[in-house]
Amino acid sequence: MAQFIDSKDTLVTDAIDGTVRASGGTLARLDGYPHVKVVVRTDWDRSKVALVSGGGSGHEPAHAGFVGRGMLTAAVCGDVFASPSVDAVLAGILAVTGKAGCLLIVKNYTGDRLNFGLAAERARAQGLRVAMVIVGDDVALPDLPQPRGVAGTLLVHKVAGAMAEGGADLDAVAEAARRVIDGAASIGLSLDTCTVPGSPREARIPEGKAEIGLGIHGEPGTEQIEFRGASDAVERMVARLAPAMGEGPHLALVNNLGGTTPLEMAVLTEALARSAIGPRIARIVGPAAMMTSLDMRGVSITVLPLDPATEAALAAPAAPAAWPGMRAFAPARVLPLPDGLAPVAPLASDHPAHRALVARCCDILIAIEAPLNALDAKSGDGDTGTTLATAARAMKGALARMPLADLTQLFRAIGAELGQTMGGSSGVLLAIFFAAAGEASAQGHGVRDALRAGLERVRQVGGASIGDRTMIDALHPALEALGDGLAAAARAARAGADATAAITRAKAGRSAYLSAASLSGHNDPGAEAVARLFEGLAA
Amino acid sequence: MAQFIDSKDTLVTDAIDGTVRASGGTLARLDGYPHVKVVVRTDWDRSKVALVSGGGSGHEPAHAGFVGRGMLTAAVCGDVFASPSVDAVLAGILAVTGKAGCLLIVKNYTGDRLNFGLAAERARAQGLRVAMVIVGDDVALPDLPQPRGVAGTLLVHKVAGAMAEGGADLDAVAEAARRVIDGAASIGLSLDTCTVPGSPREARIPEGKAEIGLGIHGEPGTEQIEFRGASDAVERMVARLAPAMGEGPHLALVNNLGGTTPLEMAVLTEALARSAIGPRIARIVGPAAMMTSLDMRGVSITVLPLDPATEAALAAPAAPAAWPGMRAFAPARVLPLPDGLAPVAPLASDHPAHRALVARCCDILIAIEAPLNALDAKSGDGDTGTTLATAARAMKGALARMPLADLTQLFRAIGAELGQTMGGSSGVLLAIFFAAAGEASAQGHGVRDALRAGLERVRQVGGASIGDRTMIDALHPALEALGDGLAAAARAARAGADATAAITRAKAGRSAYLSAASLSGHNDPGAEAVARLFEGLAA
Repeated sequence: MAQFIDSKDTLVTDAIDGTVRASGGTLARLDGYPHVKVVVRTDWDRSKVALVSGGGSGHEPAHAGFVGRGMLTAAVCGDVFASPSVDAVLAGILAVTGKAGCLLIVKNYTGDRLNFGLAAERARAQGLRVAMVIVGDDVALPDLPQPRGVAGTLLVHKVAGAMAEGGADLDAVAEAARRVIDGAASIGLSLDTCTVPGSPREARIPEGKAEIGLGIHGEPGTEQIEFRGASDAVERMVARLAPAMGEGPHLALVNNLGGTTPLEMAVLTEALARSAIGPRIARIVGPAAMMTSLDMRGVSITVLPLDPATEAALAAPAAPAAWPGMRAFAPARVLPLPDGLAPVAPLASDHPAHRALVARCCDILIAIEAPLNALDAKSGDGDTGTTLATAARAMKGALARMPLADLTQLFRAIGAELGQTMGGSSGVLLAIFFAAAGEASAQGHGVRDALRAGLERVRQVGGASIGDRTMIDALHPALEALGDGLAAAARAARAGADATAAITRAKAGRSAYLSAASLSGHNDPGAEAVARLFEGLAA
Repeated sequence: MAQFIDSKDTLVTDAIDGTVRASGGTLARLDGYPHVKVVVRTDWDRSKVALVSGGGSGHEPAHAGFVGRGMLTAAVCGDVFASPSVDAVLAGILAVTGKAGCLLIVKNYTGDRLNFGLAAERARAQGLRVAMVIVGDDVALPDLPQPRGVAGTLLVHKVAGAMAEGGADLDAVAEAARRVIDGAASIGLSLDTCTVPGSPREARIPEGKAEIGLGIHGEPGTEQIEFRGASDAVERMVARLAPAMGEGPHLALVNNLGGTTPLEMAVLTEALARSAIGPRIARIVGPAAMMTSLDMRGVSITVLPLDPATEAALAAPAAPAAWPGMRAFAPARVLPLPDGLAPVAPLASDHPAHRALVARCCDILIAIEAPLNALDAKSGDGDTGTTLATAARAMKGALARMPLADLTQLFRAIGAELGQTMGGSSGVLLAIFFAAAGEASAQGHGVRDALRAGLERVRQVGGASIGDRTMIDALHPALEALGDGLAAAARAARAGADATAAITRAKAGRSAYLSAASLSGHNDPGAEAVARLFEGLAA
């Protein structure tokens, strides 16, 4: 599987550079590539407790993406899925730690524990106050002595970050972090493994299966289960989370493990709401990609009991764009449909001249069904004549309920009728034509100007111009000439329609998909219909 | 490819419900499922120009995710890749449009143009002011008469949204939208097609190839190219964008088409900075998934020339969490490495008693190399003795440069020495042990308490407790008994080490990975080493 990287060796530093560059100046990195890969805040003054986290890369936006006001002070990045070195961690600590001290937030993996742990000792030997908390929120196995640190880590960042930003001292920040660690429980589920750059993807999870209880490094989950859709998958996850939850309100963090689409994440979020623990979820963070496992097509859910202090810390402002914020998780509010959706049937009225004109138009269109179909068959599916004739027949049948005496209402009614009886794009365009004509008529324009307004709207919505080999090529000149009478309009329409035979590159409408050879030498069926209509009326 | 959905039929409504539910009450939906799928702001008072957009689903977070203060007023959602019906669009318009009118922002696809266009006519017939703009930002083909609307649409949402929020009238909002449409140019590139729910994935793009100039509905791109890594791919995209750009500063919107990882997106962002147009990119939106094509493993880049009014509108606050904000795009700031990374070599000093003690410890550990290896071979790789003996030999050789007269410095120096000469986890843990002992000593604690502090730190960092079958099982009782003399400590260590033979379930350290059978009946090698060390010292 190809990936958007340049080389395995520069992958992490390239990504850090991109992240820092796109941060709007809020982030910087320490010198020391490739060994030291540390991202720090640029707006930091060392007067508050510094928060340093990190670990292997491949979990983006964690952790560099969460550096910023209200969250981390520095992130120490290792290579993909590899712990950063002691020196790199020490560099991060020394770069940001002042008198208030520093809290290291470490995910429970041996390499991270040891390297952050030793770096902490070295920093302490230089007189710095350094505390360390170890996050183990994974509940993949209920009796795991060393639960892994996964997406719950972000809640630790957020709560500790808010405390530190608010000026709390190191003990208080560490204590708040430990409270989150004690309360957070996470479970992951995936439909596929992840692609470690430079390595083939492991085909471990068969089609139709999912793996539950997995970490964030591609290691196997605790169980392979049948995959029976989003809701069932969430219920399986919830069954692992529920025993770790109390009765009170909880927060849920819904995390994309990297390759799941936003559409699926929204479906999973709704499934969580409908799950057994849904009623206990009062607040949500996400859905979003926060702690990923490269391109894993999976999801993790973290739950955390809410108390007022924790909730306030989670709600506090935070600068990192990767933090999606905490929001209330409540049933969707459903608003009634607005009035005005059902078209109001116009009051029928009679007007002999109008009735005769409409009927005459319909008769003409019905009469040219066969020749139009034949023409259309040369460049299309041969149904233009039938489409128009069918609509014309329906229109004749509707004449008795038409508001014939009121031109504005009549235009609108014809538009509505065509919109319902004619299929496809042409039906919609003719509906737009007459509706817009009705609008112009309502504003006091005469028949010809109303029809021209209709055409203008059709051109805007349909995107076709004169010369694009559409019915506009006949209709536009006809309407322009209509001021000189029907005969002039008919002559103009005929000239326009005949000119379409020479247009071999259509820019709009369905002819745009056809070759020049299939278009050359015969008129566009829509333009021809317009010409014949005007010719019939003029006769 | 399995997907996190429950059924094709409920996919879009489930996702909308999840999105609305997780919106914290800022969003609602209209009644009318499954036909009418409209998401609206709940904080809307109709006094300002309403912005309505939408189209087929499968592009999440577009468009429902961009409904909110400062962006859209309503999003009308169709089924996956299918335009919403005229009735649905009309419902959206009627639900949010007041006297100030409504701007429809429509991506240039025939279905959307027609359905939004007809809905606009029907709304106008009810007396509403409705304008419509059509976004065609795709530059896949330079002479495309009908360029598609893709991710540039989001910039239209943002600029028009800021104008509308600021109280501009419909003409001004539409004019601002048109300015963005005129200026925006987008190009997409993907390594794979997308998976339309319910359909098999089309295997159109061979391994090692990429497709450039594609839309957001899985349709083929204009060209298949060799994929030569992230930077080359970006240069190919830039080559299409550059002709559409002026000389002044531009904004770039870097969009994840759905299946690209955050790590890759950061790499692509950096590649854009280093590309031919990099110097002209002054501001960035993203990288983020904004206008996706389901799970397409691809990226799109949109450029837009910046003028002060456009930039101000883009920078204005916006409520939707899916809008990642606009930030300056500037070279990464690189800070010098902090002082204190290179360990300061302590001043050597002599102290005959200390020297003798350390040397004696080393001699004991060297002498027990073979029996420790043999013991380790029963449950491990048989190198515990060699690891310790090697470190002991190195330590003896280093005695001449040790700060023997200063216990605090001596602890720290021993820790530093072991950290460098002993490999693996045990080396780091012993380094932590002595560093922490040194810290305690610096605070005025005596030898025994300093060592106990070291052990406490090792327990914290290593995660092992008494009874976990590690060296702690001997070291802890030994240090507790040390107040009664070395003989007592040796007896306690021996008892602790011998007790490990009965511990068949290790919770920490490498024994955690071994079966009960392979552990039962013999001592933990680390605990045994501690016991023998104390026995040797007591002898």
